[in-house]
Amino acid sequence: MTNKPEKPKKTAIRFTREADFPQWYQEVIKEADMAENSGVRGCMVIKPWGYGIWENLQRRLDQRIKETGHENCYFPLFIPLELIEKEAAHVEGFAKEMAVVTHHRLVAKDGKLVPDGQLESPLVVRPTSETVIGESFAKWVRSYRDLPVMINQWANVVRWEMRPRMFLRTSEFLWQEGHTAHATEAEARTETATMLEEYKKLAEDWLAIPVIPGEKSESERFPGAVETHTIEAMMQDGKALQSGTSHYLGQNFAHAAEIKFQDADGGESYCHTTSWGVSTRLIGAMIMTHGDDDGLRVPPTVAPRQIVILPIARDAEAAALVMPAADALAAKLNAQVAFGNPVRAFVDKRDVGAGEKRWGWIKKGAPVIVEMGPRDLEQGTVMVTKRTDIYAKASEAIDTFAAAIAQTLEGIQAQLFAEAKAYRDARVRTDITDLAAFKAFFADETHASGGFVRAYWDESASSEESLKELGVSVRCLPYDQPATGGTCVLTGNPAKKQAIFAKAY
Amino acid sequence: MTNKPEKPKKTAIRFTREADFPQWYQEVIKEADMAENSGVRGCMVIKPWGYGIWENLQRRLDQRIKETGHENCYFPLFIPLELIEKEAAHVEGFAKEMAVVTHHRLVAKDGKLVPDGQLESPLVVRPTSETVIGESFAKWVRSYRDLPVMINQWANVVRWEMRPRMFLRTSEFLWQEGHTAHATEAEARTETATMLEEYKKLAEDWLAIPVIPGEKSESERFPGAVETHTIEAMMQDGKALQSGTSHYLGQNFAHAAEIKFQDADGGESYCHTTSWGVSTRLIGAMIMTHGDDDGLRVPPTVAPRQIVILPIARDAEAAALVMPAADALAAKLNAQVAFGNPVRAFVDKRDVGAGEKRWGWIKKGAPVIVEMGPRDLEQGTVMVTKRTDIYAKASEAIDTFAAAIAQTLEGIQAQLFAEAKAYRDARVRTDITDLAAFKAFFADETHASGGFVRAYWDESASSEESLKELGVSVRCLPYDQPATGGTCVLTGNPAKKQAIFAKAY
Repeated sequence: MTNKPEKPKKTAIRFTREADFPQWYQEVIKEADMAENSGVRGCMVIKPWGYGIWENLQRRLDQRIKETGHENCYFPLFIPLELIEKEAAHVEGFAKEMAVVTHHRLVAKDGKLVPDGQLESPLVVRPTSETVIGESFAKWVRSYRDLPVMINQWANVVRWEMRPRMFLRTSEFLWQEGHTAHATEAEARTETATMLEEYKKLAEDWLAIPVIPGEKSESERFPGAVETHTIEAMMQDGKALQSGTSHYLGQNFAHAAEIKFQDADGGESYCHTTSWGVSTRLIGAMIMTHGDDDGLRVPPTVAPRQIVILPIARDAEAAALVMPAADALAAKLNAQVAFGNPVRAFVDKRDVGAGEKRWGWIKKGAPVIVEMGPRDLEQGTVMVTKRTDIYAKASEAIDTFAAAIAQTLEGIQAQLFAEAKAYRDARVRTDITDLAAFKAFFADETHASGGFVRAYWDESASSEESLKELGVSVRCLPYDQPATGGTCVLTGNPAKKQAIFAKAY
Repeated sequence: MTNKPEKPKKTAIRFTREADFPQWYQEVIKEADMAENSGVRGCMVIKPWGYGIWENLQRRLDQRIKETGHENCYFPLFIPLELIEKEAAHVEGFAKEMAVVTHHRLVAKDGKLVPDGQLESPLVVRPTSETVIGESFAKWVRSYRDLPVMINQWANVVRWEMRPRMFLRTSEFLWQEGHTAHATEAEARTETATMLEEYKKLAEDWLAIPVIPGEKSESERFPGAVETHTIEAMMQDGKALQSGTSHYLGQNFAHAAEIKFQDADGGESYCHTTSWGVSTRLIGAMIMTHGDDDGLRVPPTVAPRQIVILPIARDAEAAALVMPAADALAAKLNAQVAFGNPVRAFVDKRDVGAGEKRWGWIKKGAPVIVEMGPRDLEQGTVMVTKRTDIYAKASEAIDTFAAAIAQTLEGIQAQLFAEAKAYRDARVRTDITDLAAFKAFFADETHASGGFVRAYWDESASSEESLKELGVSVRCLPYDQPATGGTCVLTGNPAKKQAIFAKAY
């Protein structure tokens, strides 16, 4: 074990981001042992390292969902066809690719199993739950005293995917969906904004992913919504990833589901409803924001193991010294708090070579790797590698290292965010003001030239439609806008607002 | 507000346990606002009070699952038919009533939605995941160095139910399923025992439900298992509720799924696997163990709100005094710890009459209700009701009450367990030694005479079969057995062990 490992000739991931971003993405997931494809097309198995990240993300968001006044519930997986039909706009919009249950039994026939017991009416596996939850809300809400109703559920949902991609687009995925009903439009709009702000904080403060919050254009709205708000992140290939949405549904769903109440004056009104969700897609965003050519880099907030301790022992004698010292260090670290939770240190005692172990954890993106051999112990030191700079391995006094662990993790978290923000900010082009330049920018397919265009847009449906052939879409109309209007980059017409344009996942 | 409310002429729940236990059960769920039926037959909506209990149960068990060396994963909802066919024994045993997905699209046709896009091969919504998880294990395990594999998932599962009953038997339910693979039989058997012991602790230490741990008879085993271990609880109608099971699967599933490994000597062996699970059924067990004729009684460990503070204020002036005092008391309580977690106190500020509020929380089974009016405040006291004795409302000094809250909650928890254990112990009959007495006992349908029979049994399949016409089953062969054998209560033959016999849910 040398103090300064040589920078290897090749990177740990078989494909570099530069050479083939999509292949790099798949390889990182594989090498980090996060997830794998299953025997069912479009469905994945989320393995412990991937699921542990989701749990840490969940814990934080769940806490915030409760602190903002919501309670968790659980609604059925199956939705009767009739309920989906009720929401005509909803159905036309997106509810097409769905898993349909038609039978409730399997029977053996000639040594094969075949479906039996046909249902009178088919059931749909929920693609989202506005319809079933709306049906409950209609029962729960009688008077203004019952309002607001503010609930959330953590659930699996299914949208059949023809071109699946792990974490980004899978037939089944995990998410939370919040649903609320209010007496007034103002209250529902405030709720929509509050939850989008929570998603922004989750992305930035927890996943270290900088995002642009804004409103979706009409054509990009959730079907049936009056307004859809979004946070948009930039991946390292310059493409946008919609990372969370919050919808103000007006009274549309309340009319469809008959969610109405008697107000204080005895009159009858329909509720104003909202819905909002984030999903395991955020893990895809994390990979494509922070990963490098040596693998994943997991923000310490969500890393299942924040510090991995590798005891280096060539023989039993060394092991007898090093193993207890490693356990003692882990215990010392785990007794501390970082980001409001106990620190998560882990001793990797597997019977595997030291180099293989180290590179394994680098590929998994563990924030801090600590090597500890008999000679280090004699000197009261450990060798510390931060995932943010794996070629700056440094010897540190054990006690100093242990005492400063919260700051160390916070420093890594801050660095990941700063790097991602610098990368993103450098790739939001504000200097493209006419269609020719706009087309040229998005026609250039090289990785280095990817990014967002921020420019004035006249919000016309026809100009938005024309973007399709460029493979570009309006990601959002950001909240922060210049004081005055300008000229639409697509049409040359006067425009009130700027939009974010990008290719997107 | 009087100090000693009169004992009301009737109880808060429309049906008493004595008069109609099943109706009482449904009414308690309704009055406690825990859950309701949905539009899909056999599927329920779990409302915040019910789901909050599940979350508290989950948090505890999840912690123990991790502390015993397991990691969480997530496997697909859908199982290909071929995988289910592989497990012949498995299929014959129970895998009949299952939701079958046959189409992946809905299309509009004459204003109706109809299934479209027929799948080449149908998919089954998981009734349990041994098959898919076995398929993954076969990929993950190559060498003895990869073992043991110890994973768990929290998931929804579906088993079509013709006679559903909330929490006890629903078409969709929530559960955790642990799955492990080991190199040796001894290790797998230890794992099976460890997890059953965890379930016993969960039931007794967390849900205050006394259980009898033991092994299932051959006919009651999980299909494909070598041994099934169970914890059996007694409900207040004397019936048994199987509350958690842990299976030693031998090499049966490993053979079916080809889960094999190269051992240290280079030879190839099949793994020994286990699986174990508990579900939302435990909430049904909790209701039927602790509920009384005034509603639910929730153990403080799992109560979403352990202390409910009711500010009593007839006018704005009183409210200005009482509301801040109520908030201050809640903050003081919430800063403390009970059962290893922060205390959960809540101020109910709804604009609802004091009596209605109080009875609402009694029916929901909140462990402690605190009433606080201007006169109490003047004297620095509050009126405290414990759910374990609602007619012993007592005035207590605020500071004393607040300082002792952890002990108060622990006392209620201990009382619930002691009451349930006394009730159960009094109804395990050990004095029934011949078939005539056995039949007479189970023929008596009155509530007061229900219970378990603990007696010698010769473990013959024919005698077990004969129990069916009595509506009785062998619940388990308890672990604690007398030193010597005896005479079988059913056949008069010599018997090695005692069994627990009961009617069951």
